[in-house]
Amino acid sequence: MSSSSAAPAAKPPMRDALVAAAFRLFLERGYEQTTVDDIVALAGVGRRSFFRYFPSKEDVVFPDHERCLDDMTTFLAAGAADDEPVRRVCDAARLVLRMYAENPAFSVQRYRLTRQVPGLRAYELSVVWRYERALAAYLRERFAGWPDGTLQADVVAAAVVAAHNNALRSWLRSDGSGDAGTAVDHALGHVQAAFGRPVRTVGRAGHTDEVVVLVSRRDAPLWRVVQEFETALGRA
Amino acid sequence: MSSSSAAPAAKPPMRDALVAAAFRLFLERGYEQTTVDDIVALAGVGRRSFFRYFPSKEDVVFPDHERCLDDMTTFLAAGAADDEPVRRVCDAARLVLRMYAENPAFSVQRYRLTRQVPGLRAYELSVVWRYERALAAYLRERFAGWPDGTLQADVVAAAVVAAHNNALRSWLRSDGSGDAGTAVDHALGHVQAAFGRPVRTVGRAGHTDEVVVLVSRRDAPLWRVVQEFETALGRA
Repeated sequence: MSSSSAAPAAKPPMRDALVAAAFRLFLERGYEQTTVDDIVALAGVGRRSFFRYFPSKEDVVFPDHERCLDDMTTFLAAGAADDEPVRRVCDAARLVLRMYAENPAFSVQRYRLTRQVPGLRAYELSVVWRYERALAAYLRERFAGWPDGTLQADVVAAAVVAAHNNALRSWLRSDGSGDAGTAVDHALGHVQAAFGRPVRTVGRAGHTDEVVVLVSRRDAPLWRVVQEFETALGRA
Repeated sequence: MSSSSAAPAAKPPMRDALVAAAFRLFLERGYEQTTVDDIVALAGVGRRSFFRYFPSKEDVVFPDHERCLDDMTTFLAAGAADDEPVRRVCDAARLVLRMYAENPAFSVQRYRLTRQVPGLRAYELSVVWRYERALAAYLRERFAGWPDGTLQADVVAAAVVAAHNNALRSWLRSDGSGDAGTAVDHALGHVQAAFGRPVRTVGRAGHTDEVVVLVSRRDAPLWRVVQEFETALGRA
């Protein structure tokens, strides 16, 4: 989780100016007491400019989630057929962390604001839900045809989001000090240990289940091997 | 998950009449087109009666969640110290299922309505979040002092909610046909298999970790024994 060497994508300066003006007013006066008119007056632009970028006042609080959701969907769609699915969704979740970690001061301000304003909390829950559904949709496709595939997809997606958010919230509560990437890696490692496969089953996709070939990493613990073997035999 | 032989708790008839009137109008005219005035006129009561029971129009759509959240909190608080924690939160989640299964026709109507009205979808997400936090709070207490206790608590709570809702949604989409309880039991069994302990560690709570005594159920698979042993040794 090193800070990327590539420059972030260029954003329209007017959009940035609106976000900056909005947050300055939210912090000074409070979120509820700030109107869109106040924001555009401070930014020195017209109302129509505001609504060109943001459908509502709530959206200016979370200016990067739509882009991040797009990035996540693109990332998942670009995966290879032999990607380990749980690892892939963990990597997708790291895109969200990266967005927060790009601008710690802003992320911490927003976290405080979101905890104070119930409407923003509800907005955030709906965004989290959309991330979770994006991960689940990918996993449902990867698990298609497996027993309880959609159930497993939903459970793993929820676990990934919960682990990511546990680490993200700790980092935000610590005012963005410390390395968010390390904390999230640790949390996601927990989910991969519970659900990921250090062992791959080869020769199961076909029509016959008579032959099961297991290819195991050297460092996979014995019990994971047993588990995978039982799954392959349909006994788990 | 047999239908309970005990009668449901008595509810004030006026409250029931308001819910019935509201749903009749929501189905006839649509949710957005129905006002609180319309509802109280049909129920034959005054506005103040409505707001005595429901803070807003949204709340009448989910009339039993507050009671269910209370029941869940009470149930978790009444647990014994040697309850297997994952089993306990699974049982707590079954209280939600029971609320839905008590009145299948109403639950299916509400499900359809919630999918059509974005505001209700947001409301539902906030309710789901409160259930998840109730489960996580219990688990955090049970896992206190364990490495990554809060992380594990959050992940298990999210997994339980996801599994429960996967089965609940399937049942609602099938118009409430089939046995919701069996489907939820199956889904929660998946979470218990991933996170629950068929093996108990005894003699670890104390000050010395030199002795680890494992008490295993006869039917626990070998790999779970190995896993629990590694956890007890702090290696997992």
